[in-house]
Amino acid sequence: MAGYLVECVPNVSEGRRQDVLDQIQAAIQEVKGVAVLDRHADPIHNRAVFTFAGEIGAVAEAAFRLIREAAATIDLRTHRGVHPRIGAADVVPFVPIGETPMAVCVELARRVGRRVGAELDLPVFLYGEAAQDPSRKRLADVRRGEYEGLVQSIVDDALRRPDFGPSRLGPAGATAIGARPFLVAYNVNLRTPELATATAIARAIRESSGGLPAVQARGFATADPAIQQVSTNVLDTARTPLHVLFAAIEREASARGATVVGSELVGLVPTAALADVARDALRFEHLDADATIESRLLSRTFERWRG
Amino acid sequence: MAGYLVECVPNVSEGRRQDVLDQIQAAIQEVKGVAVLDRHADPIHNRAVFTFAGEIGAVAEAAFRLIREAAATIDLRTHRGVHPRIGAADVVPFVPIGETPMAVCVELARRVGRRVGAELDLPVFLYGEAAQDPSRKRLADVRRGEYEGLVQSIVDDALRRPDFGPSRLGPAGATAIGARPFLVAYNVNLRTPELATATAIARAIRESSGGLPAVQARGFATADPAIQQVSTNVLDTARTPLHVLFAAIEREASARGATVVGSELVGLVPTAALADVARDALRFEHLDADATIESRLLSRTFERWRG
Repeated sequence: MAGYLVECVPNVSEGRRQDVLDQIQAAIQEVKGVAVLDRHADPIHNRAVFTFAGEIGAVAEAAFRLIREAAATIDLRTHRGVHPRIGAADVVPFVPIGETPMAVCVELARRVGRRVGAELDLPVFLYGEAAQDPSRKRLADVRRGEYEGLVQSIVDDALRRPDFGPSRLGPAGATAIGARPFLVAYNVNLRTPELATATAIARAIRESSGGLPAVQARGFATADPAIQQVSTNVLDTARTPLHVLFAAIEREASARGATVVGSELVGLVPTAALADVARDALRFEHLDADATIESRLLSRTFERWRG
Repeated sequence: MAGYLVECVPNVSEGRRQDVLDQIQAAIQEVKGVAVLDRHADPIHNRAVFTFAGEIGAVAEAAFRLIREAAATIDLRTHRGVHPRIGAADVVPFVPIGETPMAVCVELARRVGRRVGAELDLPVFLYGEAAQDPSRKRLADVRRGEYEGLVQSIVDDALRRPDFGPSRLGPAGATAIGARPFLVAYNVNLRTPELATATAIARAIRESSGGLPAVQARGFATADPAIQQVSTNVLDTARTPLHVLFAAIEREASARGATVVGSELVGLVPTAALADVARDALRFEHLDADATIESRLLSRTFERWRG
């Protein structure tokens, strides 16, 4: 499995103490072959998100060290914030990059989970694609009751027994480790003064109300009163490619007398998501994410450094 | 300028002796931070093309070593092949990757050219975007008369004086060093039994006969007698993006009663070329090549290893 590139997007329950976040980031960066792409701390949520990537071996090691460092520096008994959480290293998802199969990330989540349970004596719940039980697929279900509720239920309730580690909660709480596709944040702007139009379109296209698979959506006002926004998260662009989503929003807008003025990506997108759009627009007979010079150079660079 | 990623696609006048090509490749790979992406040797042309990439400092060093190795192992006095050439390391173009500006490659070409002239005592002609005179922009003009003709004209003709190095030709000949955009090889397949239709469309769309800027095109038959192909090289997808070219071919085909069945990329494409297509299809308000996880990881990886 060497050579597969993956991303890891851990959420830790600390968004205020910069020195603690620096220590956690240092624990990630100690590992050769890992690149930290982003760090975003939210003091209201009292939570931070790191984004790092590299080959699976390096990413597994960095994820383990991050969890160890977070567990040593964050105490859930005194942690307050508006975001749901069950532990210091609250959620640790692995995300395939480029041609990496999802199965690689599932295996990685289970391997890291087992090690965290055994070496750090922390309870680990496997979620997302790595879940070993359908009831743990959704993160919200794993996190139900949060840290405070889980203290008792992890002991009493056989259904809340962790996949790895002890059935008891210490000050560092528990960690949800999982695998999921790359999440794309994508917004479409509409010319209409009516927020209700954007809200209605969001409802029409999102999976939860019978719309497109893997799509979450909400309507938002923008700074310009003439423009409203349909803001989406696409949890898996292989299930709903961006051009399919765009066309659906355009159709729904047109049916309501609004026009699409443009769209935007928030943050990063996998090359494969752009390749899907280009494949449709140009009727490519074949085109994979590894067809870009950047993707190819990325893989060869890691191969080269691996030696 | 550190941190800029560039590709180098040197053509050497050797396509038969694998041991010589191995030595030349080894000279490139000696340089840390350079990844060889491809090597293609053609025994009929008696010529080989290497593709390698990395940050400018590493690529400059690897290009220099490649030229030195080629000059030491290839003798133009006995070289025969059907492809035009003036030297052992015949053509050395630098190509921007990702967000790298063309000016960086122009500067790189001139820097490497100066060093090759001074340290290897080889004549160097700057071409493409790095040309210091408009008459040297086109590679065909720089290579006019080939090695055999240049032996005399480099001495006699003031207009053939090299940009760097001596005005005389040794056994290793001269080297054209330049900068150019990434070349994309892109084919569109048509349902028509008539090769003449593909040929006429190629003529209508290519720059040389008044068509789209930076587009070269020819008509080809395919293995399927019902399908003909318009085969193109796009020398600069910023000037003619792929969706513009595709739409033009579709229009021309439709005017001639043929239909487009699909298209294909040959080899690699810059992420920016796919991003252009996606930007048009989804009316993105902004989207740069650095918006993909792969491009971002690539830059951060190089930053990281640079330390």
